[in-house]
Amino acid sequence: MKNIPVVFKHGVSYTTRFVSKLPRCTDIPRIDHKGKDALVWNLSLSRRSKVDKSDGDDKGKDKCAKDAIADRNIIFVAGLGGIGLDTSREIVKSGPKNLVILDRLKKPETIDELKAINPDVNVIFYPYDVTAPLKDSAKLMKKIFGKLKKVDLLINGAGILDDHQIERTIAVNFTGTVNTTTAIMPYWDKRKGGPGGVVANICSVTGFNAIYQVPVYSASKAAALSYTMSLAKLTPITGVKAYSINPGITKTTLVNKFNSWLDVEPCVAQLLLAYPTQTTKQCAKNFVKAIKKNKNGAIWKLDLGCLEAIKWTKHWDSHI
Amino acid sequence: MKNIPVVFKHGVSYTTRFVSKLPRCTDIPRIDHKGKDALVWNLSLSRRSKVDKSDGDDKGKDKCAKDAIADRNIIFVAGLGGIGLDTSREIVKSGPKNLVILDRLKKPETIDELKAINPDVNVIFYPYDVTAPLKDSAKLMKKIFGKLKKVDLLINGAGILDDHQIERTIAVNFTGTVNTTTAIMPYWDKRKGGPGGVVANICSVTGFNAIYQVPVYSASKAAALSYTMSLAKLTPITGVKAYSINPGITKTTLVNKFNSWLDVEPCVAQLLLAYPTQTTKQCAKNFVKAIKKNKNGAIWKLDLGCLEAIKWTKHWDSHI
Repeated sequence: MKNIPVVFKHGVSYTTRFVSKLPRCTDIPRIDHKGKDALVWNLSLSRRSKVDKSDGDDKGKDKCAKDAIADRNIIFVAGLGGIGLDTSREIVKSGPKNLVILDRLKKPETIDELKAINPDVNVIFYPYDVTAPLKDSAKLMKKIFGKLKKVDLLINGAGILDDHQIERTIAVNFTGTVNTTTAIMPYWDKRKGGPGGVVANICSVTGFNAIYQVPVYSASKAAALSYTMSLAKLTPITGVKAYSINPGITKTTLVNKFNSWLDVEPCVAQLLLAYPTQTTKQCAKNFVKAIKKNKNGAIWKLDLGCLEAIKWTKHWDSHI
Repeated sequence: MKNIPVVFKHGVSYTTRFVSKLPRCTDIPRIDHKGKDALVWNLSLSRRSKVDKSDGDDKGKDKCAKDAIADRNIIFVAGLGGIGLDTSREIVKSGPKNLVILDRLKKPETIDELKAINPDVNVIFYPYDVTAPLKDSAKLMKKIFGKLKKVDLLINGAGILDDHQIERTIAVNFTGTVNTTTAIMPYWDKRKGGPGGVVANICSVTGFNAIYQVPVYSASKAAALSYTMSLAKLTPITGVKAYSINPGITKTTLVNKFNSWLDVEPCVAQLLLAYPTQTTKQCAKNFVKAIKKNKNGAIWKLDLGCLEAIKWTKHWDSHI
């Protein structure tokens, strides 16, 4: 509760005081085009120049370095949610082949809206609750892979923010991410002859440093983050890449009002929102940038309209 | 699997090569007796000198700075486990009034052994499974507080290591810690007129940096660690202190053999144990040292026989 801005007393508003606090986006590390990335890029270009563009399959394209969205098949869990929907809108603009949205509630008009943004994209919806048992997630994956044959990217975006619901918070934010990922692995795992794939997990900056008034939510996000870091280290074994998307406070219905643990801070939402936030649109644009960077092991911080890669501190090493 | 020690090819053994890798315990930060601690210590001494030693209650003692075990009432969840049992042995040596051990399985001979170490200590056992619903944990707390009237320290030590069991790993290592803590709060919370208390959560160094071959276990520990850090920041509101105990690889039955996630590394236990480890006794002695330091918010690393306080990196700030 320290440093409560003065404006809070008079309602939530933005003053130049806060705007001046925003970090400059120029602080974000730039990709070194003289290094490895440039090499991949050049290889990609030289390969492409030798390929007939009328070739309908993916053979002639550098899948990873060139574009992680165009012509891809993407599964987006909670793709109609707060950050999800604006990200789905940005994704369809980048022209995937299929965007499979899995969400708890069907919103046909929203699916139609996404189709209208880019009629070339096949937007598909399946109802899905991430708290379902693993075998149900596996069944759904079977259905999706039966239809599309291959999937390039899985985005795990289901999340709730309510520290009165301990079990459900953990089930949605942590177990749901693990189970959905576990369910897709048999189709991707290179040990089973699979082609690999990419997992983008929506975690949270609260996984770095908690909003301590919601310790269960924050901890569930720390878990999702840790899990994603491990997935990325398993790439040599599984062929599956992974990175985390860690949004800062984003103006969604999720943060308008929520319960703190044991009501330790009944005004937690108002207090948070009195500080600078970002819009779902800003977050979505940086989300798509991160997807296109396709960087295994990246810990992306998407805060205040900026995209930044975080370097995790090493306190211990398993050596293995 | 990088850096597999050469000895692994010939079985698990310790060579000077590994021993030389051990950090010196002199690297551990020392408590500054010239600062605040010294003041508390002196106050404690001056208070004690004015108190008749025959006074049976706690009035004349400096509870927190002097000794967090002697004459205290302690609840130890999984106090008969791998690290738990040796820690229970060390705890009874320091003379608590009551040591209430909650564990899944009753081992009467072990309870008798603890009683024999220090017959002045009342060692009590209740069966407890941390995966029970919160209301069951609450009932047990009611029973314990009904008997003891007050509890000074809760140690949450339940843990499993088996990445084939996703739900159970999360339920025991993360949800169990949250629920047991939540259940004790009504008796401690200063907002309800409670006297406060202390929570010591056994997390793991894998919460800092994962054993990526067991991503679910590691993530569950990252969650428990994050939760504990939040609890410590809530002390001004709740009156309840918290710190985490993060053991490195400790020679328990837990690490003799365990399953990796999707069998990504069938030899994970052997690989880990080929590097230096610590004994449960070394870990237990440092555990008791950490309890006696009683430092709110401390992130204790107990690795290779050393005790070290970790400074967590700040990547983001909620401002509230």
